[in-house]
Amino acid sequence: MAFPVQKSYSTEMSAKKSTPPRNEIEKLTERLREVTYLGTAIAVLQWDQEVTMPKKGADARAHTISLLAGLVHNKFLEVDHDGLLSGLKKKLDGGKLSPAEATVVRETWRSFSRERKLPETFVKEMAKLTSKSQNVWTEAREENNFAKFAPYLEQVVEKKREEAKLIGYADSPYDALLDTYEPGMTTSEIERIFGDLKTFLVPFLARIQKVSNNKLPHVIAKSAHFPIEKQIELSKQVAESMGYDLDAGRIDVSAHPFTTSFHPNDVRITTRYNPKDVLESIFPTMHEGGHALYEQGLPHEHFGTPLADATSLGIHESQSRLWENMVGKSLSFWKHWYPKLQKEFPGVFTAPLADFYASVNIVKPTLIRVEADEVTYNLHIIIRFELEKALIEGTIAVKDLPKLWSERYKEYLGITPKSDKEGVLQDVHWSTGYIGYFPTYTLGNLYSAQFWNTAKKQIPDLPKKIGKGDLKTLREWLRKHIHQHGKSYSAEDLALKITGEKLNPDYFSRYLEEKYTNIYKL
Amino acid sequence: MAFPVQKSYSTEMSAKKSTPPRNEIEKLTERLREVTYLGTAIAVLQWDQEVTMPKKGADARAHTISLLAGLVHNKFLEVDHDGLLSGLKKKLDGGKLSPAEATVVRETWRSFSRERKLPETFVKEMAKLTSKSQNVWTEAREENNFAKFAPYLEQVVEKKREEAKLIGYADSPYDALLDTYEPGMTTSEIERIFGDLKTFLVPFLARIQKVSNNKLPHVIAKSAHFPIEKQIELSKQVAESMGYDLDAGRIDVSAHPFTTSFHPNDVRITTRYNPKDVLESIFPTMHEGGHALYEQGLPHEHFGTPLADATSLGIHESQSRLWENMVGKSLSFWKHWYPKLQKEFPGVFTAPLADFYASVNIVKPTLIRVEADEVTYNLHIIIRFELEKALIEGTIAVKDLPKLWSERYKEYLGITPKSDKEGVLQDVHWSTGYIGYFPTYTLGNLYSAQFWNTAKKQIPDLPKKIGKGDLKTLREWLRKHIHQHGKSYSAEDLALKITGEKLNPDYFSRYLEEKYTNIYKL
Repeated sequence: MAFPVQKSYSTEMSAKKSTPPRNEIEKLTERLREVTYLGTAIAVLQWDQEVTMPKKGADARAHTISLLAGLVHNKFLEVDHDGLLSGLKKKLDGGKLSPAEATVVRETWRSFSRERKLPETFVKEMAKLTSKSQNVWTEAREENNFAKFAPYLEQVVEKKREEAKLIGYADSPYDALLDTYEPGMTTSEIERIFGDLKTFLVPFLARIQKVSNNKLPHVIAKSAHFPIEKQIELSKQVAESMGYDLDAGRIDVSAHPFTTSFHPNDVRITTRYNPKDVLESIFPTMHEGGHALYEQGLPHEHFGTPLADATSLGIHESQSRLWENMVGKSLSFWKHWYPKLQKEFPGVFTAPLADFYASVNIVKPTLIRVEADEVTYNLHIIIRFELEKALIEGTIAVKDLPKLWSERYKEYLGITPKSDKEGVLQDVHWSTGYIGYFPTYTLGNLYSAQFWNTAKKQIPDLPKKIGKGDLKTLREWLRKHIHQHGKSYSAEDLALKITGEKLNPDYFSRYLEEKYTNIYKL
Repeated sequence: MAFPVQKSYSTEMSAKKSTPPRNEIEKLTERLREVTYLGTAIAVLQWDQEVTMPKKGADARAHTISLLAGLVHNKFLEVDHDGLLSGLKKKLDGGKLSPAEATVVRETWRSFSRERKLPETFVKEMAKLTSKSQNVWTEAREENNFAKFAPYLEQVVEKKREEAKLIGYADSPYDALLDTYEPGMTTSEIERIFGDLKTFLVPFLARIQKVSNNKLPHVIAKSAHFPIEKQIELSKQVAESMGYDLDAGRIDVSAHPFTTSFHPNDVRITTRYNPKDVLESIFPTMHEGGHALYEQGLPHEHFGTPLADATSLGIHESQSRLWENMVGKSLSFWKHWYPKLQKEFPGVFTAPLADFYASVNIVKPTLIRVEADEVTYNLHIIIRFELEKALIEGTIAVKDLPKLWSERYKEYLGITPKSDKEGVLQDVHWSTGYIGYFPTYTLGNLYSAQFWNTAKKQIPDLPKKIGKGDLKTLREWLRKHIHQHGKSYSAEDLALKITGEKLNPDYFSRYLEEKYTNIYKL
């Protein structure tokens, strides 16, 4: 790192006040920081929209977000108004920058090259459309009414196709969208990885189902009741034990659990509470908590620059899945936490730990992605990827989605949704324009297994530590190897640096095989 | 009204999309609307800061708000970038505009003339300073540490003096600040009104205290406990019965209850809950609910223009005080609501209605403004006015505030704070730069009595209606006579139009005399 990292953020800012920027990098940093602070306003407005906004506020909100999106877009393009960025890009190409400076310029240039291809009107229209269509989706899902949502989804797909065209692509328009979330990844590479994965998963799932479909015990009685206040308290305890700083974050409720960050000092997560099942709040908390640790662990002193930005959504998802699955669904974790559950909810958890552990790892095809187990989860993603890719490539139409959805679910998972609510309407992503996003979930699963494999080698007695309630050693390892680097390394290079290999999906299949062979005595 | 009022907001907006603005007023309206939507973002960020933000988020928030404040300032000045506003101002002066058009241009010109005197750097610095100083105030109040807050308050006072200088004034720099909140009002006019009021209040208070200091019954037992969930539910019921639309609003908790509006469709209030006393949530709810009804009652179709903006803070406060005091502390109101309280909290309210009514109207000098009764309340305001005016005029220093505060409380109310927490640190206003704001509270009290007098004449059987739980008839009357007009009439003209008189403080003293003569048998 060429930048000083020992200084606290506020010291640095107050020092900035009196001293003018010493060099071009500092000047660029200052401009980027302004853009980021403004972008924060949009993030706060969106958080509010999801968590607190009264329903009639939606129209006005869409206008405000749209205006801000236009302003942020313009302000970002202004970083180069006097050729500052272009000049630095030349220095980068000439090899004249330190590694940290190179990261700032390379990654800013990447976003800039993309962003300047989008006209302001396009950005504003997209923001308004997706803000609106998200509200329509919420209603349509509640009403189980795909026809209500379809015209908006058609507009979103049309706009995303336009976006791909504006940005440009070599093979598929889907490449242009995927690249926003997973820089450097291509559609054909995803197809190859997902193809291999499907080849492993489908027979593996069949093996499990053959051995013991439904044989594992459900340990929570149908009559059990979990008071919400107790669940809230427990979610906080779990998140804090992971190292999530609640003075720099908060846990709320939303329809779809999510994480958002306004600054490493204000990173918020949401979960949901089902009075019939406390696990339905614990796992989302751990998942979002994993995202939040990444955001809280980004270097404060580089806030606003690519040095303090997550490297890719795949890596981001690796953090959430690692905490949710490798940790949260492990026997070690529950060695420490199961007795707490038993104490907190007396009379509910009477099964022995081994049965409880098996029950949180039941493999069974279900219709809802976010409730899926580790084995079937990626099949949900593969279906979404195949459909959204086809939408963007124009080979299928929005109106045919419900039918195609059912067919794929039948084919890959052997089940069919009875309604669109538990089918094509279940996810928020398409309504918000997040097309090209789903594959990063599976990439996250693959990376998480690969990182987990290395973490277990490098941290002595990791499962034992987790079994004693020590989650912070793992958090420190992740912070050291992943969080603090921001975009210093691409996803690919980060995997190489940490594990000695580029992305290797075998770690994930081996992880599944080992875990489920054990649980299901395959 | 020259503008169409029958169209719904969203219809109008979508019509706008395809049709270019027909005339200059529409062009101005469109520009103002953009500025207002952007300003909304600041309001959301501030609401979040008060209600939901984790404490470490404060520094980053101050930066974002400061940047937005600069942007909104510039965007507002741009309404005249091609002489659009100046041109319309000439038409206004030439008498060529319809009444509604005249309101838009006159009031926009008023704000514009003021705003263009403030440099962007000043606006941004002020925003950053007050955001920061508000956080310091929160800590200082918790720690009862005036010395911690003093350096920030000194900076705020200095900046407000600079603001007054930039804006310009005839007699006192305080005039320039007062005018922001109460257009057209002057320091000398306030001094005259407050002088008369003090002359009435001090002996009137003495009369009450002589007759029955502490003789009225406290009807809530010290051992009473009011579960928060029940209080939340009750607050909602009361607010809804007033006509507050909870689909276009929400009720949260904050240290200082407040109302904020992002659009007539998203108007939020806060209150607080004391498990020992349910009334401490009901009265703030009614107070803020009164503000919220004004905001929800502004004409949606003129959103963003002065036609959909409250005419003055004095009039705004008249709405909150009317609901809190004339309604909420009346015998009629409790005829309907006391039995509900009794049912909701069994065993707590055993006193007869008459005693309960007397107990919510106990007159007794106290240290905390927001807990003050109707008689002593304005003495709290007069003290703040005298001190902040002297601060701005430079005749006293921040460091002497605690001493001066004690002296005035002793003189006007006969009591002395034991700590700064219950003295000079109790109010948020100065920390946020709201200097010149306090007088509007008393103006609100005066206006509320004057409006109440007319409402009782014009609405047949108003107290009887309230006694039957009908609050909406009053809400409709207020909407018709006040809310829907926005800034079409100045505060003065509005009073004249509704009551046949300009502001006449006698209505307030007569109201107090009648009410308390009855309660205290003076």
